[in-house]
Amino acid sequence: MIPRSSSDRFHDHCGVFGVFGHAEAAHLVYLGLYALQHRGQESAGIVSSDGARLSIEKGMGLVNDVFDEARLAALPGTAAIGHVRYSTVGSSLSVNAQPLLIDCHRGSIALCHNGNLVNANALRRDLESHGSIFQSSSDTEVILHLYARSQHRRLEEAVAASLSDVMGAFSLLFLTPEKMVAARDPSGFRPLSIGRLGESVILSSETCALDLIGAEFVRDVEPGEILVVSADGTLSLHPFPQQRPSHCVFEHVYFARPDSVVFGNNVLETRLRLGRLLAREAPAAADIVVPVPDSGIGAALGYAEESGLPFVWGLIRNHYIGRTFIEPKQSIRSFGVKIKLNPVRAALKGKSVVLIDDSIVRGTTSKKIVAMVRAAGAREVHMRISSPPTIGPCYYGIDTPLQSELIAANQTVEEIGRFIGVNSLGYVSLDALFSAVGDPRGALHCHACFSGRYPVEAGRNEGPLIPFEKQRD
Amino acid sequence: MIPRSSSDRFHDHCGVFGVFGHAEAAHLVYLGLYALQHRGQESAGIVSSDGARLSIEKGMGLVNDVFDEARLAALPGTAAIGHVRYSTVGSSLSVNAQPLLIDCHRGSIALCHNGNLVNANALRRDLESHGSIFQSSSDTEVILHLYARSQHRRLEEAVAASLSDVMGAFSLLFLTPEKMVAARDPSGFRPLSIGRLGESVILSSETCALDLIGAEFVRDVEPGEILVVSADGTLSLHPFPQQRPSHCVFEHVYFARPDSVVFGNNVLETRLRLGRLLAREAPAAADIVVPVPDSGIGAALGYAEESGLPFVWGLIRNHYIGRTFIEPKQSIRSFGVKIKLNPVRAALKGKSVVLIDDSIVRGTTSKKIVAMVRAAGAREVHMRISSPPTIGPCYYGIDTPLQSELIAANQTVEEIGRFIGVNSLGYVSLDALFSAVGDPRGALHCHACFSGRYPVEAGRNEGPLIPFEKQRD
Amino acid sequence: MIPRSSSDRFHDHCGVFGVFGHAEAAHLVYLGLYALQHRGQESAGIVSSDGARLSIEKGMGLVNDVFDEARLAALPGTAAIGHVRYSTVGSSLSVNAQPLLIDCHRGSIALCHNGNLVNANALRRDLESHGSIFQSSSDTEVILHLYARSQHRRLEEAVAASLSDVMGAFSLLFLTPEKMVAARDPSGFRPLSIGRLGESVILSSETCALDLIGAEFVRDVEPGEILVVSADGTLSLHPFPQQRPSHCVFEHVYFARPDSVVFGNNVLETRLRLGRLLAREAPAAADIVVPVPDSGIGAALGYAEESGLPFVWGLIRNHYIGRTFIEPKQSIRSFGVKIKLNPVRAALKGKSVVLIDDSIVRGTTSKKIVAMVRAAGAREVHMRISSPPTIGPCYYGIDTPLQSELIAANQTVEEIGRFIGVNSLGYVSLDALFSAVGDPRGALHCHACFSGRYPVEAGRNEGPLIPFEKQRD
Amino acid sequence: MIPRSSSDRFHDHCGVFGVFGHAEAAHLVYLGLYALQHRGQESAGIVSSDGARLSIEKGMGLVNDVFDEARLAALPGTAAIGHVRYSTVGSSLSVNAQPLLIDCHRGSIALCHNGNLVNANALRRDLESHGSIFQSSSDTEVILHLYARSQHRRLEEAVAASLSDVMGAFSLLFLTPEKMVAARDPSGFRPLSIGRLGESVILSSETCALDLIGAEFVRDVEPGEILVVSADGTLSLHPFPQQRPSHCVFEHVYFARPDSVVFGNNVLETRLRLGRLLAREAPAAADIVVPVPDSGIGAALGYAEESGLPFVWGLIRNHYIGRTFIEPKQSIRSFGVKIKLNPVRAALKGKSVVLIDDSIVRGTTSKKIVAMVRAAGAREVHMRISSPPTIGPCYYGIDTPLQSELIAANQTVEEIGRFIGVNSLGYVSLDALFSAVGDPRGALHCHACFSGRYPVEAGRNEGPLIPFEKQRD
Repeated sequence: MIPRSSSDRFHDHCGVFGVFGHAEAAHLVYLGLYALQHRGQESAGIVSSDGARLSIEKGMGLVNDVFDEARLAALPGTAAIGHVRYSTVGSSLSVNAQPLLIDCHRGSIALCHNGNLVNANALRRDLESHGSIFQSSSDTEVILHLYARSQHRRLEEAVAASLSDVMGAFSLLFLTPEKMVAARDPSGFRPLSIGRLGESVILSSETCALDLIGAEFVRDVEPGEILVVSADGTLSLHPFPQQRPSHCVFEHVYFARPDSVVFGNNVLETRLRLGRLLAREAPAAADIVVPVPDSGIGAALGYAEESGLPFVWGLIRNHYIGRTFIEPKQSIRSFGVKIKLNPVRAALKGKSVVLIDDSIVRGTTSKKIVAMVRAAGAREVHMRISSPPTIGPCYYGIDTPLQSELIAANQTVEEIGRFIGVNSLGYVSLDALFSAVGDPRGALHCHACFSGRYPVEAGRNEGPLIPFEKQRD
Repeated sequence: MIPRSSSDRFHDHCGVFGVFGHAEAAHLVYLGLYALQHRGQESAGIVSSDGARLSIEKGMGLVNDVFDEARLAALPGTAAIGHVRYSTVGSSLSVNAQPLLIDCHRGSIALCHNGNLVNANALRRDLESHGSIFQSSSDTEVILHLYARSQHRRLEEAVAASLSDVMGAFSLLFLTPEKMVAARDPSGFRPLSIGRLGESVILSSETCALDLIGAEFVRDVEPGEILVVSADGTLSLHPFPQQRPSHCVFEHVYFARPDSVVFGNNVLETRLRLGRLLAREAPAAADIVVPVPDSGIGAALGYAEESGLPFVWGLIRNHYIGRTFIEPKQSIRSFGVKIKLNPVRAALKGKSVVLIDDSIVRGTTSKKIVAMVRAAGAREVHMRISSPPTIGPCYYGIDTPLQSELIAANQTVEEIGRFIGVNSLGYVSLDALFSAVGDPRGALHCHACFSGRYPVEAGRNEGPLIPFEKQRD
Repeated sequence: MIPRSSSDRFHDHCGVFGVFGHAEAAHLVYLGLYALQHRGQESAGIVSSDGARLSIEKGMGLVNDVFDEARLAALPGTAAIGHVRYSTVGSSLSVNAQPLLIDCHRGSIALCHNGNLVNANALRRDLESHGSIFQSSSDTEVILHLYARSQHRRLEEAVAASLSDVMGAFSLLFLTPEKMVAARDPSGFRPLSIGRLGESVILSSETCALDLIGAEFVRDVEPGEILVVSADGTLSLHPFPQQRPSHCVFEHVYFARPDSVVFGNNVLETRLRLGRLLAREAPAAADIVVPVPDSGIGAALGYAEESGLPFVWGLIRNHYIGRTFIEPKQSIRSFGVKIKLNPVRAALKGKSVVLIDDSIVRGTTSKKIVAMVRAAGAREVHMRISSPPTIGPCYYGIDTPLQSELIAANQTVEEIGRFIGVNSLGYVSLDALFSAVGDPRGALHCHACFSGRYPVEAGRNEGPLIPFEKQRD
Repeated sequence: MIPRSSSDRFHDHCGVFGVFGHAEAAHLVYLGLYALQHRGQESAGIVSSDGARLSIEKGMGLVNDVFDEARLAALPGTAAIGHVRYSTVGSSLSVNAQPLLIDCHRGSIALCHNGNLVNANALRRDLESHGSIFQSSSDTEVILHLYARSQHRRLEEAVAASLSDVMGAFSLLFLTPEKMVAARDPSGFRPLSIGRLGESVILSSETCALDLIGAEFVRDVEPGEILVVSADGTLSLHPFPQQRPSHCVFEHVYFARPDSVVFGNNVLETRLRLGRLLAREAPAAADIVVPVPDSGIGAALGYAEESGLPFVWGLIRNHYIGRTFIEPKQSIRSFGVKIKLNPVRAALKGKSVVLIDDSIVRGTTSKKIVAMVRAAGAREVHMRISSPPTIGPCYYGIDTPLQSELIAANQTVEEIGRFIGVNSLGYVSLDALFSAVGDPRGALHCHACFSGRYPVEAGRNEGPLIPFEKQRD
């Protein structure tokens, strides 16, 4: 492993966006990445093709920091793909910024990846033992090596062959001088949608980015589908053995933007349903419903509607927080939370509050929020969570902490409630979650983080699983 | 005039924060400015005192961009004042960044200003005719010249004398090596609050910044009060003729953060009241209430509560928009709005929508939002505004457009409704606004932008008014 | 005083360049500043006029760091003045970067200054007592205040009046929207030359910058002359009482570039003469003559010629040294010198070396160089200095250390020789210096740093002298 | 090929520096790179090892621009290697900055390369056909692939095996967590010296960098030698078939610093000899000898000595030229040269001048210099060149233009003289060059650029040669 930082892991949590057949391809990708910025703030990059050559611009930071007019102007051509990457504190490695752009015997190719391969370490060791060199700690580089080693003549066959060896989650965009290729793993872990803007083909992690550029949503790339877009039109392949879908249920719960349609459901609607079901399953004798903004808003509105309790905007979020906030040396109580959230005393004073959040990971942040709400005068605090207890780490592209750090993997609901200091704590049930996402038996989703039941990949040898990572908190 | 840019005006819209008597004074000011960032994103600066000398660090951009550990470390001492400045596109002059720091026969002094002087041009001409030189286009520099020319021996007398000549709005923080001085104009146009953190005295434009550092809110600096904070304690002076207060009513409506207490009222509570009154005065036969986020949220919650209509989170705001967004060359419909807001189709489709915003300035943005909501499938759009029609520009520190550009100054409500393309349009009445801010006869506020009645400054000659500026839209 | 840094002084050591009547005025100034970069590396700035308005761009660093195409493009018009400022470690204050640009009752005016006023503190105190405020620690700001306070109607009269009050050294360029004004103090301390490029009037601290842009050297601005350049032509005024010239003799010795003509003499020729005279006055029984590059090269060539000893390029200078070199923590012998100079062992080994430098200030650097030359194998080291012992600080624009730090002010030549570790030490005599600069009795130059005899300013009250500063070493 | 820029070539011209066994390893490398800055100004980088992990910091620009205290602090450990890279206008690709750092089945390894492989394209095609992917356009990456594919167990065997396949010039430094490895091609094209600083082993492209850190010069790495430095001591291997040395003769002529000892000769001494021989072979009936600084100084001193003509410092070089100089739009005669060089009129006027330069490439720069010297008043200009006519491009690591652009490859000396506008032109002969470098029959050097005779690599198949590049002019 390249020990460039304290992080020795394969990790990923990202957004991808591609345009084929548009005079302002790179500029549209830039706009699309803006709309996907919530999926990754560490780095941003775009590769464009003018039909003969690929050009690349990428860097650390927000889309707005990385790109200016000059850098967009340096991305000529009518096809382009782009990527935003998740920020994990302390391992901001520019070498891992995407797209990756390489040369091989097939020519130049660029790649963007949202997801996480579970057998990347094994594949990497195998590739290394056959003489491959790695210049990043990204699992995505593994795919490019497999592609470069494929002996298949045609691009789509080489892509299919290389992806046959990988297991786990991948929503991919490739770009060669002539073609854009989209691919989604057979389980369909991560989203990837197709749009159309006039004659141009658009690909995006979420539909909210299609809306921004005025593109029409066509359909999702299907699990296991490879889509080859070229001047000759669009070719759809299904080269992998079919398999039960395992859509990431956490996209509904927290990650996707409320205005997106993910796996066929509008995210806001799903969160409203989760809130309603939560109100039924975990009612609270309280005065008001207060969301932890912004992620708890949808569920809080549903909870308020179902419970009849008033929805109160009792915590205000400061949206100007940058990546490098300098912590004060002196102890300010609950400081880590305060820089983002401030309670509205007038709204909370003397009230029994139902506080709605989407999940509890380690519990430390929730504990600070609860203390802050109490300090603002709340009489009682009842925490309600719009997802089931988080008991398992994710191996498919969401950066989660070690199982030992997941409070719900180690403590009862009652213990958690005591730890975070609430009068009562309630979660939505797994069945309610399945119902809210329109998958009553949970047969179409990956819900391993809530159920502990990890998807089995059909017809493949299970490789060694990737060590998991710490989750947002 | 120094023609350094296309702007030849005195303008201002800012936040100030000061700390006296704390070992981490500059760091606390940095935190305070973070919480006041919504009051200005163009520049940020801090001056600190170590008891003998003043140190300054300032620059263009957000607090997060301007300050790092090294720059904070270059601000030693136990007293500090800081400033964030409003961003007006195209006139980002680093020479106007505050605090201003000068030397004069009294020694070194730094100044931060929130507000706008209405007789600055006249004073400047007069000062220039007596040999003063100006290095910025800021009205704040006028105050420093008056201070430097004062013959009074004591600091507080010199401050009072210099402020006796200026008219208009000022919430000021001065810092000398030994003392911090706060001053608020006799009309009390702009807010300025006093806090206490242990033995330290804190001053802040808004109380939300006191919350962040864990300081206790003590009281507002009174209109016309000069507060001198030194190692000897705090001295309060009232050197100006008393005068009817003219608190800026627009702070309640839009500018202050919902978690702040401004002029004695919590901002969120006021906005909820405005929403309720709006529902009574301008009901709509609609299906759902949708806020224009973030400014319309408070009123929308109040409107929904009063009307019984469901509150729906139908427009999603992208908070990652930076200052230098590169517009696409191609025409994307409603683009200028889309980069910030995206409708949730599932929530709007087929619905008759009451859209709640805090104000309409030129009407062009509202027109785009309405078109976007209709394109998302809304059956009807009824716009409701939680303030009266904006008919007059502001001379007291809010950057507003020319009267000729204010749509409500030139068209009837019906005409505006047609222009922005709604099925119906309604505003809250002036009386309801007065009622919502707890000032039933409007006697304590400046409401010139809504009523056209500008405050008369008691016992002073009215100088020539400053040309006004374009307002946020 | 504004205590923004550890430096509480008025200091200056700079280059100025101006162009009037050229379509690429700002670009020519940029080129001129390049050629004057050796006169100051701390900051660079340009103000241009388009006939109606002044535009400014300035910043910390080399010309190459401060200016790019965009910043040059932001300087429209056919007239421009520019400035490079001396780098004094630890007091890099952006507030002191020039040109200064102000507004006053006469309109906008910009100013560049090379030199140092000896009564600036007194004038500043007086101005402050009449209400002036200062925003820099530069003595140049004093001139602008005097100008702004002048009641004379015409520009040239106001300039003349304001300069009547100042004593010391000034070579100035003013720019108003319509006119460029050059002024030189009656003693003519610092150089200022007039050039012509087609119809355009050029002004430059040194003629080497005229050469670069292909301008023809016309003549020097005369001591005490004010030159007003406008669309109406060029007007020459001599408003001050005439006075004995006091050209800075150190410009010949060290500061000016060898290809410049300064005070009527080519600098390289002068240095060759100094070397020849040095060889006569202080011969050495040695094998080779080695210059300390680059400043000692001219004199070393003269010394070699006169003595018949071979000129050997025995010390190589690394020209890539930036402003912020990070010193190693470990002790490397003679490190501070080694990063700039490296001996050529093959050339020095076993040789008796005459080492030629232009001056010795504190002696610490010379000591390191001598040690380095010995370590490289030199058998003997005889140091010869192409100027007399430096015994007095400069008050006229050269940054010199305290008299107590000038080794020659406190020790005999023999003691200095022992301190720096040479076999013998010799200086050129004052008379030889006078002879070399074509001023046999020293009547036309200021040579206070060598003779201790400071020029008396005719018909003026001697104000309190400015504390002096540390010199390059 | 990766078409990231207009450049589609393998090119290189660089300096390398390594330290093993020193507590401040990275800091010493930083110092060493400072002293080697003349070998490359495009990018700079350092990799350090703390015994377990490698850390990397690199970037575009000078050493001084790339490194600050924080970046040095991010390079822990007692071993480090560094690299400066040559600047070729228009192809500044950060992806090509060195050291390269990769992961393979042997673990992490970093590599710095000075030189150029002549069979890199063929090797790359072969590697690609076996599935390798390339992320740069650097030939250095080829070596890492060969290393990673080697099946040898021990590091030194793997290095030797991988280097057995490459042809051309390489002076290499490898760093693994435990070891530093130096390697030099069997022809010894590029220099690489060993130094010692206490117990630490130092490796440097030139000895001048050893001098800076106070290290003692031990010996050169021998052609074909592989040196393995570890905690166990230093191991020397000679795994390649022995071969006639082919030291780059141009290092003596121009590239190395005068204070370095290269291939056993002090560079300054060699250049003095070249000057003396030039005076004998191509005397001129002239008044003075003037060098084109800095590269012509050594030869000019030798020429003057031998001819008895005075050495005159008639052209002054401005050392403040950065990488991004903005050319004026207007035509300034000889501008491209003037920004770097300015004649001293007083020294040249009326004189018959022997102008000494190290080489003529395209002739365009010489033509401008001659015109400038004439314009400064020289009566006659006789150009003398301290190397033979340049008739062949370099394939071994010096960036040279196409043969069609080399004026001496296409025109007679007389024609060149007419083109550059001199009264006479003379070159040193090949034999004199051989004599000056102490290799009377030219048997130890590569002199292909002067003789057209390219070294034949013993016992190897000649691969297709690399297209050559444009040389400095």
